[in-house]
Amino acid sequence: MKELEKITPLELDFARWYTDVVKQGNLIEYGPVKGTMIFKPNSFGIWEQIQKALNGIFNSLKIQNVYLPLFIPDRLLAKEKEHIAGFNPELATITKVGDKDLEQKIYVRPTSEVLFADLFKKMIVSHKDLPILYNQWANVVRWEKTTNPFLRNREFLWQEGHTCHKSAIEARKLTRDMINVYAKFLKNYLAIPTIIGKKTPYEKFAGACSTYTVEAMMKDGKALQAGTSHYLAQNFSKKFEISFKNDKNEDEFVYQTSWGVSTRLLGAIIMTHGDNRGIIIPPKVAPVQVDILELFANKQPRVHDFCQELVKQLERKFRVRLDSTDKSPGYKASNSEIQGVPLRIEVGPKDLENKTVTIVRRDTLEKTIVDISEVKSKVRELLAQIHNNLYENAKKKLDENTVLVDNYEEFKEKIKENKFVLAPFCCAEEAEKQIKDETGATTRCIPRKNLKPGKSNKCIFEGCRSQTNKYVIFAKAY
Amino acid sequence: MKELEKITPLELDFARWYTDVVKQGNLIEYGPVKGTMIFKPNSFGIWEQIQKALNGIFNSLKIQNVYLPLFIPDRLLAKEKEHIAGFNPELATITKVGDKDLEQKIYVRPTSEVLFADLFKKMIVSHKDLPILYNQWANVVRWEKTTNPFLRNREFLWQEGHTCHKSAIEARKLTRDMINVYAKFLKNYLAIPTIIGKKTPYEKFAGACSTYTVEAMMKDGKALQAGTSHYLAQNFSKKFEISFKNDKNEDEFVYQTSWGVSTRLLGAIIMTHGDNRGIIIPPKVAPVQVDILELFANKQPRVHDFCQELVKQLERKFRVRLDSTDKSPGYKASNSEIQGVPLRIEVGPKDLENKTVTIVRRDTLEKTIVDISEVKSKVRELLAQIHNNLYENAKKKLDENTVLVDNYEEFKEKIKENKFVLAPFCCAEEAEKQIKDETGATTRCIPRKNLKPGKSNKCIFEGCRSQTNKYVIFAKAY
Repeated sequence: MKELEKITPLELDFARWYTDVVKQGNLIEYGPVKGTMIFKPNSFGIWEQIQKALNGIFNSLKIQNVYLPLFIPDRLLAKEKEHIAGFNPELATITKVGDKDLEQKIYVRPTSEVLFADLFKKMIVSHKDLPILYNQWANVVRWEKTTNPFLRNREFLWQEGHTCHKSAIEARKLTRDMINVYAKFLKNYLAIPTIIGKKTPYEKFAGACSTYTVEAMMKDGKALQAGTSHYLAQNFSKKFEISFKNDKNEDEFVYQTSWGVSTRLLGAIIMTHGDNRGIIIPPKVAPVQVDILELFANKQPRVHDFCQELVKQLERKFRVRLDSTDKSPGYKASNSEIQGVPLRIEVGPKDLENKTVTIVRRDTLEKTIVDISEVKSKVRELLAQIHNNLYENAKKKLDENTVLVDNYEEFKEKIKENKFVLAPFCCAEEAEKQIKDETGATTRCIPRKNLKPGKSNKCIFEGCRSQTNKYVIFAKAY
Repeated sequence: MKELEKITPLELDFARWYTDVVKQGNLIEYGPVKGTMIFKPNSFGIWEQIQKALNGIFNSLKIQNVYLPLFIPDRLLAKEKEHIAGFNPELATITKVGDKDLEQKIYVRPTSEVLFADLFKKMIVSHKDLPILYNQWANVVRWEKTTNPFLRNREFLWQEGHTCHKSAIEARKLTRDMINVYAKFLKNYLAIPTIIGKKTPYEKFAGACSTYTVEAMMKDGKALQAGTSHYLAQNFSKKFEISFKNDKNEDEFVYQTSWGVSTRLLGAIIMTHGDNRGIIIPPKVAPVQVDILELFANKQPRVHDFCQELVKQLERKFRVRLDSTDKSPGYKASNSEIQGVPLRIEVGPKDLENKTVTIVRRDTLEKTIVDISEVKSKVRELLAQIHNNLYENAKKKLDENTVLVDNYEEFKEKIKENKFVLAPFCCAEEAEKQIKDETGATTRCIPRKNLKPGKSNKCIFEGCRSQTNKYVIFAKAY
């Protein structure tokens, strides 16, 4: 129980709670270069499950995995001015190899649009080569000033999809399809509800024509951008000369998209589902779904045999771990809880007598005594229930804390309360900056569907108040 | 057939043959920074199968996956002088972020021993924390002067295992176990026979106490180091102060190992099994195991329906791809061959009439006409036969071209003929360097078992001729 006490209650100090959960869940260690981190088995295992699930989805959509280099030469990045400007202050730059200076600077990729563009230029000749649907799993580097485990690191892991199409319509459709893929994935695998929408011009990706996003609400009410999908139009294809012969045998530039999710998702899982006992991992991506705790086996060796039998029974269908150490029952339970394992099964000498086991849910801490013959079906049922319960709680939180306002006073108040604030907004860059300065809120997205019909359509910003048909979600964000 | 003609015959010019195979098989594209490369779906798919197979093996050995940072700060690498000296001229160095100079240089990892050492120091307290068995899949960077796709690149992909143990015996055992894991994996998955042995002191890993290797023979007779396993003893633990309380409650430094295989394995596959039609991918790691070629479907639309039915039947058990484009039968067959797909099934209107299909093996080009009802079992049988055939051919090549010599004249002659030359050798560093200068051969390993009993035990090196009980394999190498 000692370790549990180290977690600061989330009501008391959310930031400290987060750091405690990360550390106590044995999820990470800090790296030796400031702002970098080490994924220990408990967190990397979640990322591997996320990779597996997304690879399955990508594969069904005929998206192929590739791997492009870590390094971008100076001349390549310089080709797209808006894009490089968006990343420049964060670019890690290699200038030396051994003791020798390089003639040309080399950047460590912050994202790979220009590398893919350079590849596509070499590959594409005719409309028959299109579409190209590529994805890569990679590490990327952005030298952020302030960092936070999973949420903002100088190196992080992600997948980045890059596609080329023969028409704007097809590329636009894929951009929207992918944001829907992410929203569904977040709901079905991570139990995280999101709001799908478009970024304002000020918040869109550097070099994109439009950016779609899925925005999730964390337990403290702040927003987390959980995935993005960009319609790049012909911005890169014109600058990198990625052209194809269309079916009229004319030269045309390809239409492109890019889209990604990153290890931020682990931060999203913690801050959406976690409680004062630590992380709660959604069952579908939990590296361990069921902990089997052998209690007092020293007094009754048959308990051990029974537990091993149980492992055999369950491991064909579930990811199972057995704790048969000589630690105390209390320690074993706490250890399973703090690591966020969705279910634990406790087996002691008494259970053996009664031919039962005790199953404990991590989310509700509810205990169920189950007949041995029914363990398998009960585990399946409870894992599904946990997923649904996590999702429903998060959805309720999101719905209850998304509010519609029509005047700036109320806007500021609701932002202070860490709400998602839906408001009519002109989307002018200057207005957006000033609102950020005054309230700390940024625009999260223009929701695809108006969540609630607006009573007013005067821009919320006091300096504007012009008529607008756009409703935008504002929030403080990670 | 046009593309096929572009492959230089391997008997004519092996190096050009290799480059042609890589390019024509649509395996890679060169990256924009010299010495880097792009893994296209055809090659990355093989790497993904390798990852899957090895992850399965590692998992059964309780080895856990983690991810450590790309960056090593100056001060950390400087702690192990021998280790850094081994990598220094190849170290890519970050000195700037954006326009700002960094205070301390940061290196891009060439390998991660020092990063793992820094982590282990933080994690380990007692003997109860041991052993720790970690692995990571990562990109590493070594600024090589001459590069070659898959074989030697400035950035490559690999897995690196790092373990800590409470005794030298246990760590030594794991070092040997892992080299055996690699030898088995190469045989059972890649159909590549290897010679297992120990590196000479001159060839061992910088910072290791001893290095084991698996050496494979390429079709031109040259050696390729396919995997290594290092016993690090307490070299790193002493310098990084990774200590634990042993069961007598005394402080002791841990005993460590590290081991890895890399994307070199793709080069090994090409040069072990390839022929003048291109790569032949061993069935177990082929991203596509069976190509189904729809022939003349425009004349007989029922062919298309039948092929789709066939895909459904086979895809539950095998990795299947359907080519239903309107390209010619000859083109489709060549395309499947040049990409090294182990089996292709050709389906034309006649087959439909006769209720048969034609299965063609990539390795022998043998055609079998099979009744529709027997396709599934025949595919399984043929894939197993291809694996065995590839292995047997490679084994024969290796056995026939490994020769025992006892004098330097014959030694030089056999090295010139690109043989693996087994010879008594004193293992003195100076002798090794001079032999390399004179013949181009390096020591590959001291085989675990004497392959052939030596007639003489006078050192092969003319300047030495001292008595020795060591037999060493020399060869030219990649």
